Amino acid sequence: MSYWKTHIPAGVQDFLPDEYYNKLLMENKAREIFDKWGYLEVEPPSFEYFDVFSEGKPSIEQEQMFKFFEPGNRILVLRPDFTMPIARIVATKLRDERLPIRLSYVGNVYRYEELQSGKQREIAQAGIELMGIKGVEADAEVIAIAIESIKNMGLSNFQIDIGQVEFYKGLIEECGIKGEEADRLTSLIDNKNMLALELFLNKLNVSDNTKTFLKKLPLLYGDSSMLDEAYSIANNSKSKKAVDNLYTVYEILKDYGLSKYITFDFGMVHSINYYTGIIFKGMTSDIGYPICGGGRYDGLVSEFGYDIPATGFALGIKRILIALERQKGLFERPNIDVLVVFDEEDRKQGYEYMGKLRKEGKRVEHFLLDRDKVDIKEYAISKSIDKIVDIKKGKIEEMIL
Amino acid sequence: MSYWKTHIPAGVQDFLPDEYYNKLLMENKAREIFDKWGYLEVEPPSFEYFDVFSEGKPSIEQEQMFKFFEPGNRILVLRPDFTMPIARIVATKLRDERLPIRLSYVGNVYRYEELQSGKQREIAQAGIELMGIKGVEADAEVIAIAIESIKNMGLSNFQIDIGQVEFYKGLIEECGIKGEEADRLTSLIDNKNMLALELFLNKLNVSDNTKTFLKKLPLLYGDSSMLDEAYSIANNSKSKKAVDNLYTVYEILKDYGLSKYITFDFGMVHSINYYTGIIFKGMTSDIGYPICGGGRYDGLVSEFGYDIPATGFALGIKRILIALERQKGLFERPNIDVLVVFDEEDRKQGYEYMGKLRKEGKRVEHFLLDRDKVDIKEYAISKSIDKIVDIKKGKIEEMIL
Repeated sequence: MSYWKTHIPAGVQDFLPDEYYNKLLMENKAREIFDKWGYLEVEPPSFEYFDVFSEGKPSIEQEQMFKFFEPGNRILVLRPDFTMPIARIVATKLRDERLPIRLSYVGNVYRYEELQSGKQREIAQAGIELMGIKGVEADAEVIAIAIESIKNMGLSNFQIDIGQVEFYKGLIEECGIKGEEADRLTSLIDNKNMLALELFLNKLNVSDNTKTFLKKLPLLYGDSSMLDEAYSIANNSKSKKAVDNLYTVYEILKDYGLSKYITFDFGMVHSINYYTGIIFKGMTSDIGYPICGGGRYDGLVSEFGYDIPATGFALGIKRILIALERQKGLFERPNIDVLVVFDEEDRKQGYEYMGKLRKEGKRVEHFLLDRDKVDIKEYAISKSIDKIVDIKKGKIEEMIL
Repeated sequence: MSYWKTHIPAGVQDFLPDEYYNKLLMENKAREIFDKWGYLEVEPPSFEYFDVFSEGKPSIEQEQMFKFFEPGNRILVLRPDFTMPIARIVATKLRDERLPIRLSYVGNVYRYEELQSGKQREIAQAGIELMGIKGVEADAEVIAIAIESIKNMGLSNFQIDIGQVEFYKGLIEECGIKGEEADRLTSLIDNKNMLALELFLNKLNVSDNTKTFLKKLPLLYGDSSMLDEAYSIANNSKSKKAVDNLYTVYEILKDYGLSKYITFDFGMVHSINYYTGIIFKGMTSDIGYPICGGGRYDGLVSEFGYDIPATGFALGIKRILIALERQKGLFERPNIDVLVVFDEEDRKQGYEYMGKLRKEGKRVEHFLLDRDKVDIKEYAISKSIDKIVDIKKGKIEEMIL
């Protein structure tokens, strides 16, 4: 037997019963919220043509995709993301539906990533897409659902960091920073790499005033007072409009009663070619990486030939499981309720009895070993079963352990 | 935009809300039965090392697997089957568990198949594995669960065809047919290709008596009287033992009250290198291909270094959906219960009201369009929502459509 036959690749995992019970529970807790808010669940294929994910402005690089060949045909990829397939579905198969369209999904995405800081290569997600509508109410609804889902999953200690990529885009336009310089700047700010940012800005041909506020950007992180600070920094209408958007979203989230979960981060400037407005991520002090992420991507569906706006988010189920375990522990998987023992002569009665218990909602195991060779009580205890029903010559005997 | 950006590969599909609702419902109906019978759900990765599926006696050929490269590393395959990964899990991670081990799974498998007779390339399955126990009680439990699952999914018109590969293996040993000749014979019998079987047998160097009963094999299909016929044909202990196994399983299924679902088929001789005893498939007159399949594969777990017997089955969810649609129609997806409309001044009250409805279990959509531009009633009707709640200056007005 080769070594590899009993091992699994890096970045994927076997979910064993206790953890899988919690995974399914978390997924269903998310589903419950999505359903109550009027979102309909869909499922795109696990693999699609490379073209779906590579044309336009992909949020995921080719290098991160698992690619393979459809025999005699085209390049396929394991879906690295749900948003693009759902945009494709909406643009092709749900075009006659009244807008806005509210869709949800639960499933895995696949990304070839360096395995550090909590990254996996098979990633369980649950999320929503709100398509066909612009505006602050839609932006706020998506964030409210993210918060309600995480709460419903049992986490209490978390926050949603909100940013606005248009604020940053307005700033660098205002400063005249473009191309590779802008890319480098974006990366330094997003990674809050203060020292390298300072060195980079020193060499940049912009005014001292500009340098000062660009340096400040990664520090524009905190409560709603950051909105005033950001507003005062910007001298262009795009950035000011972006902050206005956040002011109103924050007011709405106050009315939702959810503002205590909100912080702002104007230094969150990842995927600025993909996002077109508000962006957000869910953080908890229990783990060092986001448990959810989302935002507005108005340019996406139009890549599939249907020009409608869109916003949404995805929860990372495994990360939520890790946070849950650290915050309050995983939920306990229910044990088998009853072990039922009988011999051939009582078989018919035994099956009927087990059937009755199962109809009542009980989890029932039929004891299949030889009662003359195995200690039934010891067997039940080893499986954490605390009730034995022994049927002998028509007589039913119960034993509570 | 390339043609391929808006199309999906052959053999996979988008599940849109109505069908996905039924898919999830079917999966949960299967889960309900598995859970009540004491099976614990697990989830192996979507892709694994090729070695897991290729060593030993695979039930799936390399040609049927979607293969790709782990960058800089080994060949990976999209799991073509759940049984092998679960055998791996049991052999490596559940070795300290008391036997028997009852596990279940719900998820997709991937097979590159010619697209005919209802075949897909991404196949949604739900199934169980009963590992670590031999014997008729285990064989019967697995079949009983298959029947209960299909019933629980809403199908009534179906049957389970039961075969026994050891019966056939005994026969060809008895006749001295081996190697390629045996392979050809097996294929002709399994496909019930009577004419080619007759021509093939005519050229075979075996007694006329042997030819007569081998010709009869594909016709040994029907009710339990087939057991007597099969018993009378065989002159070797392996075949007779195999029929004895079926006699007892049938008696047990009678005691379960499930014998009306059972037929026998001694000409069902596929995957005889993989199976080691009873085999079965679920059939319905509504579609021409099996809705479930399973059997005993005692040699499988030992390929992973843990020599225990095993039996199990898998349901084909998509095929069950097709049969369900033809037999009684799909279940109706519940609509949104209430459309709630309010303006900014009533926002706080509006969110509270929607929150209350959702807590009561209602599906609630917040109307996000401009009430001055869109006819709310017409909008609700277009989305099959039959209740509108309009909140205006603190006053709540209900409208039933």
